[in-house]
Amino acid sequence: MAGNTFGTLFRVTTWGESHGPASGVVIDGCPPGIELTEEIIQQELDRRRPGKGGGASPRQEPDRVEILSGTFRPEGEDCELTTGTPISLIIFNKDAHSKSYDHLQNVFRPGHGDMTYQAKYGIRDHRGGGRASARETAARVAAGAVASQLLRAHNIEVNGYTLALGGVRAEGRDMAAISQNPLFCPDNEAARRMEERINEVRSQGDTLGGIVEICATCPPGLGEPVFDKLDGELARALMSIGAVKGVEIGAGFRVAEMLGSENNDPLSPAGFLGNNSGGILAGISNGEDLVMRVAVKPIPSIPREQQTVNLANEPVTIKVGGRHDISAIPRIVPVCEAMVRLVLADHLLRQLVLVANRTAVSGNASTENG
Amino acid sequence: MAGNTFGTLFRVTTWGESHGPASGVVIDGCPPGIELTEEIIQQELDRRRPGKGGGASPRQEPDRVEILSGTFRPEGEDCELTTGTPISLIIFNKDAHSKSYDHLQNVFRPGHGDMTYQAKYGIRDHRGGGRASARETAARVAAGAVASQLLRAHNIEVNGYTLALGGVRAEGRDMAAISQNPLFCPDNEAARRMEERINEVRSQGDTLGGIVEICATCPPGLGEPVFDKLDGELARALMSIGAVKGVEIGAGFRVAEMLGSENNDPLSPAGFLGNNSGGILAGISNGEDLVMRVAVKPIPSIPREQQTVNLANEPVTIKVGGRHDISAIPRIVPVCEAMVRLVLADHLLRQLVLVANRTAVSGNASTENG
Amino acid sequence: MAGNTFGTLFRVTTWGESHGPASGVVIDGCPPGIELTEEIIQQELDRRRPGKGGGASPRQEPDRVEILSGTFRPEGEDCELTTGTPISLIIFNKDAHSKSYDHLQNVFRPGHGDMTYQAKYGIRDHRGGGRASARETAARVAAGAVASQLLRAHNIEVNGYTLALGGVRAEGRDMAAISQNPLFCPDNEAARRMEERINEVRSQGDTLGGIVEICATCPPGLGEPVFDKLDGELARALMSIGAVKGVEIGAGFRVAEMLGSENNDPLSPAGFLGNNSGGILAGISNGEDLVMRVAVKPIPSIPREQQTVNLANEPVTIKVGGRHDISAIPRIVPVCEAMVRLVLADHLLRQLVLVANRTAVSGNASTENG
Amino acid sequence: MAGNTFGTLFRVTTWGESHGPASGVVIDGCPPGIELTEEIIQQELDRRRPGKGGGASPRQEPDRVEILSGTFRPEGEDCELTTGTPISLIIFNKDAHSKSYDHLQNVFRPGHGDMTYQAKYGIRDHRGGGRASARETAARVAAGAVASQLLRAHNIEVNGYTLALGGVRAEGRDMAAISQNPLFCPDNEAARRMEERINEVRSQGDTLGGIVEICATCPPGLGEPVFDKLDGELARALMSIGAVKGVEIGAGFRVAEMLGSENNDPLSPAGFLGNNSGGILAGISNGEDLVMRVAVKPIPSIPREQQTVNLANEPVTIKVGGRHDISAIPRIVPVCEAMVRLVLADHLLRQLVLVANRTAVSGNASTENG
Repeated sequence: MAGNTFGTLFRVTTWGESHGPASGVVIDGCPPGIELTEEIIQQELDRRRPGKGGGASPRQEPDRVEILSGTFRPEGEDCELTTGTPISLIIFNKDAHSKSYDHLQNVFRPGHGDMTYQAKYGIRDHRGGGRASARETAARVAAGAVASQLLRAHNIEVNGYTLALGGVRAEGRDMAAISQNPLFCPDNEAARRMEERINEVRSQGDTLGGIVEICATCPPGLGEPVFDKLDGELARALMSIGAVKGVEIGAGFRVAEMLGSENNDPLSPAGFLGNNSGGILAGISNGEDLVMRVAVKPIPSIPREQQTVNLANEPVTIKVGGRHDISAIPRIVPVCEAMVRLVLADHLLRQLVLVANRTAVSGNASTENG
Repeated sequence: MAGNTFGTLFRVTTWGESHGPASGVVIDGCPPGIELTEEIIQQELDRRRPGKGGGASPRQEPDRVEILSGTFRPEGEDCELTTGTPISLIIFNKDAHSKSYDHLQNVFRPGHGDMTYQAKYGIRDHRGGGRASARETAARVAAGAVASQLLRAHNIEVNGYTLALGGVRAEGRDMAAISQNPLFCPDNEAARRMEERINEVRSQGDTLGGIVEICATCPPGLGEPVFDKLDGELARALMSIGAVKGVEIGAGFRVAEMLGSENNDPLSPAGFLGNNSGGILAGISNGEDLVMRVAVKPIPSIPREQQTVNLANEPVTIKVGGRHDISAIPRIVPVCEAMVRLVLADHLLRQLVLVANRTAVSGNASTENG
Repeated sequence: MAGNTFGTLFRVTTWGESHGPASGVVIDGCPPGIELTEEIIQQELDRRRPGKGGGASPRQEPDRVEILSGTFRPEGEDCELTTGTPISLIIFNKDAHSKSYDHLQNVFRPGHGDMTYQAKYGIRDHRGGGRASARETAARVAAGAVASQLLRAHNIEVNGYTLALGGVRAEGRDMAAISQNPLFCPDNEAARRMEERINEVRSQGDTLGGIVEICATCPPGLGEPVFDKLDGELARALMSIGAVKGVEIGAGFRVAEMLGSENNDPLSPAGFLGNNSGGILAGISNGEDLVMRVAVKPIPSIPREQQTVNLANEPVTIKVGGRHDISAIPRIVPVCEAMVRLVLADHLLRQLVLVANRTAVSGNASTENG
Repeated sequence: MAGNTFGTLFRVTTWGESHGPASGVVIDGCPPGIELTEEIIQQELDRRRPGKGGGASPRQEPDRVEILSGTFRPEGEDCELTTGTPISLIIFNKDAHSKSYDHLQNVFRPGHGDMTYQAKYGIRDHRGGGRASARETAARVAAGAVASQLLRAHNIEVNGYTLALGGVRAEGRDMAAISQNPLFCPDNEAARRMEERINEVRSQGDTLGGIVEICATCPPGLGEPVFDKLDGELARALMSIGAVKGVEIGAGFRVAEMLGSENNDPLSPAGFLGNNSGGILAGISNGEDLVMRVAVKPIPSIPREQQTVNLANEPVTIKVGGRHDISAIPRIVPVCEAMVRLVLADHLLRQLVLVANRTAVSGNASTENG
C-alpha cells in the first residue's frame, strides 16, 4: 500500500496512469527561495522526450509541464521562487491512443506488470500499461528538475550517460560527446555503432538492453548509517525504475575478484587516491565523485509472437505492436539522473540539520562564553 | 539523521557500537500470536558466528540474545508468543578489546567509514569501528529471525549461499551442500578451492571479495508500484550491508547484452517458463522464486602497510592488525538472508491489508445481499 | 519541512494556495475495488460550500472536483472503481480576487499566519492567506469523501454537528435536525438563536467561535498503543484544522472534576454502561461510539480597526475587509468529519493487517494439522 | 501496527511491559556533540518517581537508567557527548509483583485497556497492565531528558505544573512554588487544599482527576503547515499519554464564547499584545510562550467494587487493589513536559533544515558574486 512517495525531507509523490487525463507530482519539503519556473522544468522533460533518435518510437508527446502551486514572485523579484509549500506539477496527456490497447485487456504481456498488477489488485487499467507505464517517469524527471535547482545552490551536479547498448560499450568517458549524439554516449564512435545495432535489431522485431552510468559531485557527509546508507538509497532509487535489473557503486561487481589491497582507496592530504568506493564509505559520501551503474533490460514490448496466458489462465500467443522504442536507453538516462537528484536532495537536507545544529550550538556556546 | 529504522509495518530499529556494553534491536509491528523464543533467534545468530572456518577471525563472541519485551506465555499455551507490542532484543558485548584500537583513534583506515563518520558528525567512537562495525549486523540477524517466524507461517522461505569467493565460482546449485561446508557454498568442490584461496591470501596479508546469491519463495502480489517496488526495496536492504557494492535481480547485469525476445519470460498456464525477471515484474512479485545476487568487497582491514591520513590531514601509513576475517563471506550470508526477510515481512504485511479489505468488503457485500 | 501528508497506510497529500490556479490532493493507499465517482466526492464538497447561510461570505466558489487518476471502469462493471493506484483530485480556482489583497502584502493580519509564515519561510504568497487559507480544507473534504467510501464498506459512519456557536448551546442531540437548519445543529431552536447571534455580531463588525461535536461508529481494536493511540491521532487531525484551539474525547475536560468511580464506564455482557471514555481505552477503540469535541475560534478577519505591524516591524492599523464569514462554523463541520474519516480509514487499514494475519496463520496452521 | 515510534527527525521508539525484565527507549536522530550522562537523565526520572507525596503509591521503583549506546567521551573532553548514532536507554524492572495480578488475568478492569488490547491482539500480558501500564512513560521521560539537552542548547525551556486537582484550582502562577510542594503546583495554598482533597478521597476508596498546564519558550518558525502543525503535534503528543482526555492551546475552549475582536492578539513592534493563541498561529510558533493544558482523568484502579465482564463475557464484579496512586497528578507532569520536549526537539531539527539552507544558499550566492 502507498508506495508512490519518495524521500524523507524532500518528499515526492507521483500519480497518474498512461492513458488518464494527466499525470503529475507533488513535491513537499523543497526549501523556500529557490528559483523555479516551468521553463526550467521543461528543459529536463525535453531531454526525456521520445522521437529524438536512438531507436525511439514516433509517439510525439508534447509533455508540457505546468506549475500549479508552491511558487510565488514577490514584489521586486525578477523570478518566481519556491515558497516552502508543496509544489504541484501537472502534465496533461494529449497523444494517447487507448483504443489500440483494447485487444490487450485480458492478456498478460510477457515482461510487463500486467500479471502482477492483476494478482495484487484484482483490477487494473490495462490501457498503455496504466500506472506501470514508463510514462510515469515523466513526473519523476519533473521532480528531479526541482531537486536539481536545490542541488545547484549547493554545487552538486549529476550527469548520466550511456555506457553500453546492445553489447556495444563506450571506450572512454568523453563528456563533451554526451550532448553530441542522440544516445547520450560519452564516445561518439561507440554511439555510431550502437545506432547500427539498433537498426539491425529493429528489422528483426526485437529490442536491446544496456548500461547507464551516473556520476555526481557530492560533498562529504551525505548519507545515514545502517539502513539509510547513501548507496542503499541510491540503489533503491535506481532499481525503482521499471527497466533496471542491477545497480552497482564504484568498482561494483568487480570487487568480487579483487584483493583488499587492490580495492582499498588510499588517502592522501589531497584526497583519495582512487575511487573504487564510488565516493561512499560506510554509507556516507567521502567527497569523491559518486559513481553508479545500472543494468537496463530490453524493452519487453516486441512485435514477435510470444507465448502467454489470458485472464482465464488459458494459453494464448501475443504480438505487442504499437509505438514502442527499441531500447529504454537513452530515454532512461534523464530518469536515472532524476532519481539520483531526488536521493541527494533528500540527504542534503538531512545533513543540513547537523550542520545547522553544530553552528547554532557552537554559536550559542560562544555567546554564553562571551 | 535517523537512519537506523527499517520498514513501514514490520519496523526494525537497531542500536549499539562495537565496543559499547551491548547492541540490540527493537521490532515494532510484528503481529501477535507468533511463536518466539530466545532459542529460535539464537540459532540464526549462531550461523553468523565467527571462528567457524572460512577465513574467520579468532574473536569468539558468544552473542547470546535475550528477549526483553514483546512475548508472553498465556496460561495453557506451551510456548511464548508475540503479543503485538515491541520486541526488544539485546546482545551484551563480552569479548571486546578496546585498548587494541587506541592507536587508530586519530587515523583514518582506508576502506572504512572512519573518515566519513568524522566528516559527518565531527565526533566518532573509533573503537572497533563504533557504529560502522560489522558487529551491528548481529542485531539485523536477530530481527531477521523474528521475521522468519512470521514468514514461515505464510510459507515463505529465504536461503542465501556463497556463489563466488576470491575468483572461485560455484558451478551448480547443490542445495544440500550448503550445510556441508563452512562457506555455505552450494558446490562442495568449489568450497574446497575457495578455502585454498583463503589460505593463500591469508599468508599474503590480504583479503578477498565474492558474490552471495539469495533465493526466496514468494507468493504473487508483494511489492508496491513506483517507489516501493519489491526489487528496489531488496536492493536498498542488501546495499545497506556495509561490504556490498552491487545488487542484481534475476538475469541482472546480463540483461545489458540480451535481446527482448531472450529476456522475456513466457507465461504458461502452469506458470512462467523462465525466471530472468528474478520473480519480480513491475516491482511486484509474480509467484516465481525471488533471485538476487550481491557483490561483496574484500575486508578493508589488512595487515599490510597502507597510505592514509590522520585527523590533522597529515600523511601517515597504517597496518590494520587485530582479529579480522579474510572475507566477509560466509558471515555475510545470514545477514543477507536477514535483510531479505525484513523486506518480505514488511511487504507481506502491506499486502495483507489488500487481502483483508477484499475479504471484508466482499463479505460485507454478501451480507447486505443475503 | 514536508508537513502536507497525513496517514501511514491511507496517505493523503494536499497542495495549493488560495489564489493559485488550483488546489488538490493525492490519496495513496486506498484499496482497489471501491466505488468512486466525481459525484460522490462533489456531494461532500457541496456541504462545505459557502453562501448557504450561517453567516457565510458571498464568495461563490463552484469547487468542482475532478478525478485525474486512480479509478477505472472495467468492462462489465456499472461504475468506476478505485484501482489501488494514487487517486489525484483537483479543484480549479475560479472566483479569486487577488487584487483585493494587495494592501495586505506587507502587513501582518492579527490572528492569521502572516507573521509566522514570514518568520518560517522568509517569503510568502500573501494573496488570500496563500497556503494558510481555509480554502486548503476543500482538498481535505475531497479526500475525506474517498475515505468515507472505504469506511462505509466496513460499516463505519462519521457525523459532525454544531454543539455551540457564539455562546448559544444545543440542548439535546436531535440528529434529524442536523439537515434541517443551515448550521448543522442538532437542535432547531438553538440554531435559530445562533442565527440571531450571528446577525447581531455581523452588524458589530465582529465574529464568533463555537464548538463542534463529532460522533463515529467504530469497531473495537482500532488504534495503536503508545504514540499512535487513536485519541492522539484524532486530536492531531482535528487540531490541524486552522481554527481549532482545543480537542476533547468523551467526558473531556469534565474528567478533571470527576471521581474514578464516576468516570469509569462499567462493562456488561451487552457492552459498556456509559461512554465517558468516548469509545477509546488505552488508545484503542472499544466498540462504543467515538465522541469528540473541538473548540473553534472566531474568524480572525474582522472589519474593525486592529493594531499590528508591517514587514518592517513598524506599528500600523488594519481593517480586514473582503468576503469573510462570521464564523468558521458551519463550514468547518464537514472538515472535522473529513479529518476523523482520514484517521479512521488509516487505522482501519492498519488493523486489517492483524485481522488478515490471524486468518492466514490460523488457516495455515489448520492446513498443517489437517 | 507499529505505533511505538514518535517523531520524524528526532525519533523515539519505546518498548517494554510493566512486569517484563526491563523497559527502554531508542533515540535516533539526536545530533552529535551534545553533553549526555546517566546523571542528567536520572534527574528527570527522579521527578517522576512515586512515593514522593501527592497521593502516590508506596511502590518504590528505583528506575535507574543506563545508557547502552550513542555517547562517547573523546580524548580531551571532560564529558560524554552524543555521537549522532542511536542512543539506547534501559531501565531494569526490580520491584514488580506479578503474582498480585494473577486474579486479573481473565477480567477486564473498567477504565483500563484490558478489553481493548484483548480485542485488538487476541492475546495480552495482563501483569500490571502490560504494555498499557503507566510504567511505559518512564521511557518517555528518559527520552525527554535527552531532548531537553538539545533544546537547552537552543534556549528552549519547557515547564509543566498542576493547575487543578480534584476540583481545587491554582489561583495564580507562582513559578517558585512549583518546586516547593510535592504536587508541582504554582500556588502553595492550593497545593495544601489539593492534598486535603487527596486524603479525603483516599479514605473513600476513590481517585481524582485534574488539569496540568505546560509552558515553553519557543523561537518563531517551528511547526509545519497543514497536517504537521505545531499545535496538532502537541495535541497528539499529549493525548498519547494514557490518562489525558482533552488538550487545549492558548485560550482553548474559551474561544468558543469569545468574539474575534477579543480573541485576536494584536501585534506591536515589541511583540504580541496578548497570547490567546498560545504562541501558535496557523500551526507555526510566533515567538510567544507556548501554553497548553491537558485534562487528566482519575486513576481507574479503585478498591471499590465495580461491575465488569470476564474473557468469556460473563458479568463479574471486581475490586482493583494493589499499590496505586490517587491521581496521575503529579507524576504525569514530567511526562507532559517530556512529550512537549519531544515535539519541540523534532520540530526544531525540521526548522534547522530551512535555516541551514538559507545560510548555505545565500553564502553560496555571495561567493559567486564576490
